[in-house]
This record gives sequence, C-alpha cells and structure tokens, in this order.
Amino acid sequence: MNKQLKDQLYTQAKEWVLEAGDHIRKHIDQPLKIDTKSDANDLVTEMDEQTEQYFAERINEHYPSHQLLGEEGFGDEVTALDGTIWIVDPIDGTMNFVHQKRNFAISVGIYHDGVGEIGLIYDVMADVLYTAKRGEGAFKNDRRLPDLQPSKDLATSILAVNTFWALKNKRVSEEGIHRLVQKVRGTRSFGSAALEFAFVAEGILDGYLTMSLMPWDVAAGIVIVNEVGGITTKADGEPVDMLKKNSILTCHPSIHEEIINEYVSLK
Amino acid sequence: MNKQLKDQLYTQAKEWVLEAGDHIRKHIDQPLKIDTKSDANDLVTEMDEQTEQYFAERINEHYPSHQLLGEEGFGDEVTALDGTIWIVDPIDGTMNFVHQKRNFAISVGIYHDGVGEIGLIYDVMADVLYTAKRGEGAFKNDRRLPDLQPSKDLATSILAVNTFWALKNKRVSEEGIHRLVQKVRGTRSFGSAALEFAFVAEGILDGYLTMSLMPWDVAAGIVIVNEVGGITTKADGEPVDMLKKNSILTCHPSIHEEIINEYVSLK
Repeated sequence: MNKQLKDQLYTQAKEWVLEAGDHIRKHIDQPLKIDTKSDANDLVTEMDEQTEQYFAERINEHYPSHQLLGEEGFGDEVTALDGTIWIVDPIDGTMNFVHQKRNFAISVGIYHDGVGEIGLIYDVMADVLYTAKRGEGAFKNDRRLPDLQPSKDLATSILAVNTFWALKNKRVSEEGIHRLVQKVRGTRSFGSAALEFAFVAEGILDGYLTMSLMPWDVAAGIVIVNEVGGITTKADGEPVDMLKKNSILTCHPSIHEEIINEYVSLK
Repeated sequence: MNKQLKDQLYTQAKEWVLEAGDHIRKHIDQPLKIDTKSDANDLVTEMDEQTEQYFAERINEHYPSHQLLGEEGFGDEVTALDGTIWIVDPIDGTMNFVHQKRNFAISVGIYHDGVGEIGLIYDVMADVLYTAKRGEGAFKNDRRLPDLQPSKDLATSILAVNTFWALKNKRVSEEGIHRLVQKVRGTRSFGSAALEFAFVAEGILDGYLTMSLMPWDVAAGIVIVNEVGGITTKADGEPVDMLKKNSILTCHPSIHEEIINEYVSLK
C-alpha cells in the first residue's frame, strides 16, 4: 500500500472511529437491548450492530472495492486476504460495555494483501485513541509511544490472562498456565482484548495470553504492538491466521519464546 | 462519633488525600527507588513511604490522640480498636504504580471504636475520588453513587478474582474457585484492592474475592461499599478483623451467601 493511500485511509478511519465513539458516549446511559450469541455470556447489543453498520455503510460508499470483516455480520464473506480489508470490532469488550459502561473499545485494523497497515483502538469512555501505521510508530492520542524497553524478565512481568484458562479447558493445558502464573510477577484481566493489546503496546502489561480470539479482536492490536517492537503469534508460536479463530500471545519480545516453549501446551 | 467531628475529619482527610495524590502525580515520571518486602514481588517505593509519612506527620500534629495504622511503618503499634484510628494505605496497588504508573489508589479509612466512619479511595492518576461517611451515602467525585440494584444473579455477575486463587494454594480450595469462575459471567483483575472495592461500590463489579488482605487494603472500601448496600466479610462469612490479615469477600448482597456457602472452602 503506497504512503499516500495509507495516510488517506488512516485519516478517514480515525475520523469515523472518533465519530462512532462519540455516538456511543452520547447514548451510554440509554437502556440497552441485549441479546446473546453463542452462549449466555456472549453478549451483543443494538449498539454493537449500529456501530458496525455505521462502518459498513461508510466503507461501502467511499471504498467500494474494499471488504469489511466484522463481528456482527454487516460485512462481507471474506474468504481470502487479497486486496484491502477493514477488520472491525465495533465494541470490543461488550460485557464491559453492558456491565461497566466503560473499559471497551472500537477496534479497526486495515490490512492489504494480508499485511496489517493501519491499526486504531479507541477506548471510548476514556477518550484515548491508540493508533499505528506500519513502519511509522505507534501513538496514544497522537503522542508517540516509546519502543518497549530493551529487555524484560518473565519473573518481573505483568501478564494479562483470564482466570478461565487456569481451569481445566479444551484448548490449553492448565498445568502450564499454573506454572506461568506462579512465575510472573502478577496477572491482570481487563475484559477487552483490544485494550489488552493497547496496554502491551504501552508497556503497562508485558504480555497478553488467551486461547480464543477472532480476527476483529486482534487486527488493530497486532499493528500497534508491532510498532513498539512487540510480537504477536498464536500461543504455539505459529503465525496468526486473519481468517480464523486463533489462540494469541502478544508480548515483549524477550519473553515470547520462553512463554511458548516452557509454559503453553495447546490441546 | 458525632456528626460535627465526622464532618471535620472528612474534610481534613479529603484535603490531605488530594494533596498527597497531587504530589504523586507531579512526581510520577521520576525514576523510582524500589525495594521488596516479604517476597520479590511485594514492592515498596520511596513514594509509598513518603506518602505515609505525610499522613503520619499531619495526623500526629492535628489529632495527637488518634492512632495511625499504616502499611509502611510510620504509624502506631495498634493493638486495639478503641478510639479513633486512621487506617492508611499510601499507595494501594504498588505493583501497578511501578509497572503501569496508573491503576493505584490512596486509601484512607477512619474508624472509631472499631466502626468504620469515613472512607476515601483516590484513584490518583484518573483523579477520581470515592468517598463515604457512615449513614450518609457513597460518592464518586462528589456525585452520589446509586444503591446497588435490588437483586443480582451469580450467573450474570462480574467477579474480581486474581488467577492466583485458582491455583493450588494454602488458603482456599481451588476446586471451589474453579466452579465459581465457571458459574459467573466473567472475571476481572485490576491489581488494586482499594479500586476493586470502589468498583464494587459503583456496581461495575458485582463482587471481589481474595484470600489475603491487610486492614489498610480494605478499611476505606468497607465503608464505601456499605453505603451502597454491599456487604463485606471474610471469605467464610465471618466479620473482618481490622487488626489482622483477612480473606475478603465484598459483593452485592444477593450473591454473598451463595458464594460463601457453595464455592469458598478455606483451608
């Protein structure tokens, strides 16, 4: 993707993200209409759907050759990564949106021929926007984020991991997760994958490990974390597949190999 | 404690908390001198010590008959709860303070003859102050917090619990914690007990369960959670002992008994 197009898409995407966020903020205290999806705790609201529709209409109008890969079904049936694809989670952290009315984000990644070119993660209620263009650094509200510190020990790391993965589950050996939780300095869980990626980019978390995320949960985050020198792979070290559900480890490069080799055993 | 004295102490404590927080904010980007206490991950900084000393000097000067029970050793050897005791955590969430430079709080509880009269929790970097006087409601930045909603199901609850308690440990049966994590809608972990209490009072968490907290971690939070109709006990339902380390469950009253009876088995 050439620089001029990248800059234009970035400016456009940022405008839409801020406008969609402003709409959510203005309606945050209205009664919610909540449905559930795959299970009783997989929530979706009218606001998720409206926000994705907002992006779908604008992308379709301004960039009819682009595709949209989105959570709520207003996008395209994307089967290959050729061309330009907007990968959008209209509200990442819907449970937080419903229960907390904060700690959720709009996540927009723009990929070209499979390469992440632009990432935007908007912490709507805090009005904090994390952004990156490939090769041009990552930013928090337009202030450049420093590169991650040169080295990091696992024993002094703060890791985001949900307690769920320390229980017997079908995706990862809980025994390794237990050893990992005992090894690190502390664990946290915020309930929004996009924000957890943003916090890794900021260096306030040293890693985020989870076993089941969709492309729209990670597309923007991967671009942003890359730009500060972080690494994102599946939890077995393989490349993330942007057309499928993935396990995910995004982290400081110094601890990536050790976590994968010593602690993660996928089932 | 009479109303006039309570109001006076509240006003004074609030002024000191805001001033101490302002000092921390102004120095947040200075290099830290970090020591460890009971273990390598139990951190303490000069800022913890300076902040407690700030409170110790002022309490001693203005209220020489009051005692101070504090984390860092500038207070008194408190052996009984008679009289008026300031229970102070100068920086609750020191690991967050060190690693994140946010998500920590100043916590001040004022107890009289063992009864929590005043609570203040100051999320320093967000500049959000949670306050309560016994019998007069709880507030967030001077806006009254609504009472917790009339009822709450455990299955739709968001529970703060650190993954550590889902591992084999010496305080609680991990099997019950596993069933609890599977039962609730979701779990979170923020790394500051005081803020987790404040979030329960706000209703953005429905409960916070943990196995080992000191009086200064909980003193303010108990007063604030009480004022919105929440309950705090040890994790076996027994009263909190403000002179000792406690297990803690603070939560919506509708889920308190069920968590204790069905899921928590202390060792």
